[in-house]
Amino acid sequence: MAQTWGNFLFSLLDYKTEKFVIAKNKKVGVLFRLFQLGVIGYLIGWVFLWKKGYQETEEVIQSSVITKLKGVDFTNSSQSGLQLWGAEDYVIPPQGDRVFFIVTNYVVTPNQKLGYCPEVRDRLLFYFVIPNTNYTGRCINDTGTCEIHAWCPVEHGQTPSEPMLAKAENFTIYVKNFIKFPKFAFSKSNVLPTTNSTYLKMCRYDKDHHPYCPIFLVGDVINWTGYSFQDLATKGGSIGVGIEWNCDLDKDESQCNPEYSFTRLDSVKNSQNSAISGYNFRFARYYNDVAGQTYRNLFKVYGIRFDILVNGKAGRFSIIPTVISIGSGLALMGAGVFVCDMILLYMMSKSSFYRETKFEAVTKRQSADHLAGRALQC
Amino acid sequence: MAQTWGNFLFSLLDYKTEKFVIAKNKKVGVLFRLFQLGVIGYLIGWVFLWKKGYQETEEVIQSSVITKLKGVDFTNSSQSGLQLWGAEDYVIPPQGDRVFFIVTNYVVTPNQKLGYCPEVRDRLLFYFVIPNTNYTGRCINDTGTCEIHAWCPVEHGQTPSEPMLAKAENFTIYVKNFIKFPKFAFSKSNVLPTTNSTYLKMCRYDKDHHPYCPIFLVGDVINWTGYSFQDLATKGGSIGVGIEWNCDLDKDESQCNPEYSFTRLDSVKNSQNSAISGYNFRFARYYNDVAGQTYRNLFKVYGIRFDILVNGKAGRFSIIPTVISIGSGLALMGAGVFVCDMILLYMMSKSSFYRETKFEAVTKRQSADHLAGRALQC
Amino acid sequence: MAQTWGNFLFSLLDYKTEKFVIAKNKKVGVLFRLFQLGVIGYLIGWVFLWKKGYQETEEVIQSSVITKLKGVDFTNSSQSGLQLWGAEDYVIPPQGDRVFFIVTNYVVTPNQKLGYCPEVRDRLLFYFVIPNTNYTGRCINDTGTCEIHAWCPVEHGQTPSEPMLAKAENFTIYVKNFIKFPKFAFSKSNVLPTTNSTYLKMCRYDKDHHPYCPIFLVGDVINWTGYSFQDLATKGGSIGVGIEWNCDLDKDESQCNPEYSFTRLDSVKNSQNSAISGYNFRFARYYNDVAGQTYRNLFKVYGIRFDILVNGKAGRFSIIPTVISIGSGLALMGAGVFVCDMILLYMMSKSSFYRETKFEAVTKRQSADHLAGRALQC
Repeated sequence: MAQTWGNFLFSLLDYKTEKFVIAKNKKVGVLFRLFQLGVIGYLIGWVFLWKKGYQETEEVIQSSVITKLKGVDFTNSSQSGLQLWGAEDYVIPPQGDRVFFIVTNYVVTPNQKLGYCPEVRDRLLFYFVIPNTNYTGRCINDTGTCEIHAWCPVEHGQTPSEPMLAKAENFTIYVKNFIKFPKFAFSKSNVLPTTNSTYLKMCRYDKDHHPYCPIFLVGDVINWTGYSFQDLATKGGSIGVGIEWNCDLDKDESQCNPEYSFTRLDSVKNSQNSAISGYNFRFARYYNDVAGQTYRNLFKVYGIRFDILVNGKAGRFSIIPTVISIGSGLALMGAGVFVCDMILLYMMSKSSFYRETKFEAVTKRQSADHLAGRALQC
Repeated sequence: MAQTWGNFLFSLLDYKTEKFVIAKNKKVGVLFRLFQLGVIGYLIGWVFLWKKGYQETEEVIQSSVITKLKGVDFTNSSQSGLQLWGAEDYVIPPQGDRVFFIVTNYVVTPNQKLGYCPEVRDRLLFYFVIPNTNYTGRCINDTGTCEIHAWCPVEHGQTPSEPMLAKAENFTIYVKNFIKFPKFAFSKSNVLPTTNSTYLKMCRYDKDHHPYCPIFLVGDVINWTGYSFQDLATKGGSIGVGIEWNCDLDKDESQCNPEYSFTRLDSVKNSQNSAISGYNFRFARYYNDVAGQTYRNLFKVYGIRFDILVNGKAGRFSIIPTVISIGSGLALMGAGVFVCDMILLYMMSKSSFYRETKFEAVTKRQSADHLAGRALQC
Repeated sequence: MAQTWGNFLFSLLDYKTEKFVIAKNKKVGVLFRLFQLGVIGYLIGWVFLWKKGYQETEEVIQSSVITKLKGVDFTNSSQSGLQLWGAEDYVIPPQGDRVFFIVTNYVVTPNQKLGYCPEVRDRLLFYFVIPNTNYTGRCINDTGTCEIHAWCPVEHGQTPSEPMLAKAENFTIYVKNFIKFPKFAFSKSNVLPTTNSTYLKMCRYDKDHHPYCPIFLVGDVINWTGYSFQDLATKGGSIGVGIEWNCDLDKDESQCNPEYSFTRLDSVKNSQNSAISGYNFRFARYYNDVAGQTYRNLFKVYGIRFDILVNGKAGRFSIIPTVISIGSGLALMGAGVFVCDMILLYMMSKSSFYRETKFEAVTKRQSADHLAGRALQC
């Protein structure tokens, strides 16, 4: 028994190789070779060289964005007089987040007090009229509207037709983006370590000449979206600044650099729907007068909302995707074998002949072997 | 030599096909056919039709969200008198971000000045008592507490038991969501291009009747999470509004539409832990009096924090996943062959017979061929 | 005809097994068995046990973060006198977002009014000087600088060399993180359901002793990044708090717990570039004096920006990745067969002998069979 097992285990070390039948059929032969070449070409050319199928990829990127704006502008309006706008005023919120808003136009309604005053009607603008939840029931003859209980005087609906902060076009945006691919424990910043401080003070991003300068001119960014500052500044708008990190971690770290792109987000092409474009909101500054009564300045600000959208992909050689890529290619070759066999066995003039050779009935061959053995004896 | 190579290359164009032994064993035959049908069914049904295994997918979505609230409410309290709350007041921050907070309840401590006053103790609420870093060391008999150096008077800890802004239930939230799948360069907005402005002014989201209306009633959103406005409004809460983009880019763009879902985030089911539910924070409005001294109104606001959570998946036909899906299925068939072979060769009554036929020892066959050759001669 | 088809379909149920040639070559046999063992080891050890290749994974995580800070500090400066900083003042924005900023140092320029005053020059700091867009053209002898139209007096550029809010080191950060893996409909909070309220009031996060306590001491967090509070507090800095959810959903839900990590984001190692470290911004509080004229207090705040970065991966058994993993491994075995065949057929001394046995020319065998048939007859 032990010997039998020994023999069996020993026989496991014999190499067994499949037996092939050579069908001297050049048509199917050429077809199969072409198919093999196709699979090999697909594997090497498309999967490995073009799609980097030997790499494990990570498409989730951890990103932290800090922004800082620079520039000042003066405005002069009949309501609020001369005003100086610094970054602490026109950037909302001021702390430099990934998403920020720059005031380019505004309507200020100064010295509002809580009280009773006539409603202002406006049929053109959607969000303008204060929703009618606080009517007193009285009608004001002068304006032909109802009296409401509200912050008075009520905001009038006329947006300046020109952006009040015309110099906003020249404001600069400094974007610091720190990214990390957690799977590969790889991190980098868009302010490249090779960049020196002097360059950072002077440079302006430009796709061709300064692709790694992290300082952007507001006007340039708008132009690169295909719109002009005038288009967006009056009624506001929303701009996406894409930062794309496409990193091949098999190469040197210095090859992994950000690429910037610029899109207008609030205007879907081919859409006639004006309700989805523009950007504005209101905020109020509250004061107390000497008597302790609260009054406020209401600002309706129009402007440009910037949304820094970071995305990325990193790839690094890994054995599993390599095996899957190669293995699936090889398995596909098996499909080629199946097709060629079908053609050979059922679509050729000599098909029945090939079939007989390829498939050996157990009984028949066995007897043939026995006969061969007998022939040996004879 | 050249001729030898020529012959070799020419012979490469011969088609070689594997030789099969037909084992006339219906049991294993049926088993193998069933396994083949299973694999084919799995490939076509599960992998291709159900899981769309022929598609390359992208699960990373670039998203930009803008929100806008509408509605007003009046509050009346003994501390602060009559107050009118517009979106500029109850939405924090007011600029319309992806994450925003609506005030539904508040405690105001008006006219606080920096000075000395007795501490307020509260054993029930966690975050209430000002941490004891600024004790003066004196004890106030009237209150039985220590004197502290703080903004006086100190905030009392009694939250109104009913939400002060009861009309917040009727506020509307307008959500603009712009998404992009960077891999496929596909972008879309939840405000569909087919939506007209009039519809946008009137509609309210409803899963059944207005699934693509981007305007939500606060009260509805809360109800859809399985809670009531009263549950959340008094002590605050946190709600996640999911927007899911599940796009098959092999179909028409118009088939790629957002689906909304609503979850309460601050209350984990089956948890008795009240410390993790509720939502509030404090902010202050600073004033200077005539003498130039600073005083402030401290607001402790309770309310509902909305977090718009966008996720999505896009798929489009691609050759690599198709090859991997098919290839791995075919390779699996190889595993079926192995199993069936094992059964045939070791678990059947005629196994030894099949083994002899399947495996041809080189020496034996070779001699048999020679014998056959000899038989030819004889 | 019907019978022919019947026979054909019936013959489909015959099991066909490949015919193998046993090459009694132990060298290639051992090589092939070693390769097989390698593939099986790779499949079981690496793909299945280590990489969990039988799981479908989701790397996109939906996350909602709420933060809350606690602690107070007093500051005393010649400009602004005694000031008390509560969370409502030093946390910007105050509503408890994923990204927040703690003031640790500041320069206040009180009682600025719009007017004319001499410029302040500073050659050392990048962002200090107000950009020269509003010169009046006059020169002030006393300071040797030009007159500008600005908020006067202009901010001087001296940052306190010690952090004004030295107690910020002891502030606590309470982080609530709710996550969801949409593909698996799995959600969890970092405030574990088993945590009781008392523990939540007392605990401080510590990797070894309190790994699931969601309350962090500011000073600890900074130390864990490898820097000290003094390093960051004076000029500001940016810290990333990573929350990693690595969940094997085949195990119990209680095994899926967050892991925290801490990194300084504004200081790339090995970089001499000081322009990218530090963090500050300005904001203003506006007041009206009795005459109705606006004045403001300008704060330039330095501090620590915390960015809670959530990432995660969830895996659950799924048939498709299992099939792909197994299938690609099996297909790889096919590659091993190819290599061993090549060695056997072209690199062994008896190669030509093996080739003759492995490949059976159709014509030759067919005739041999006929001969065998004839031999039977003779």
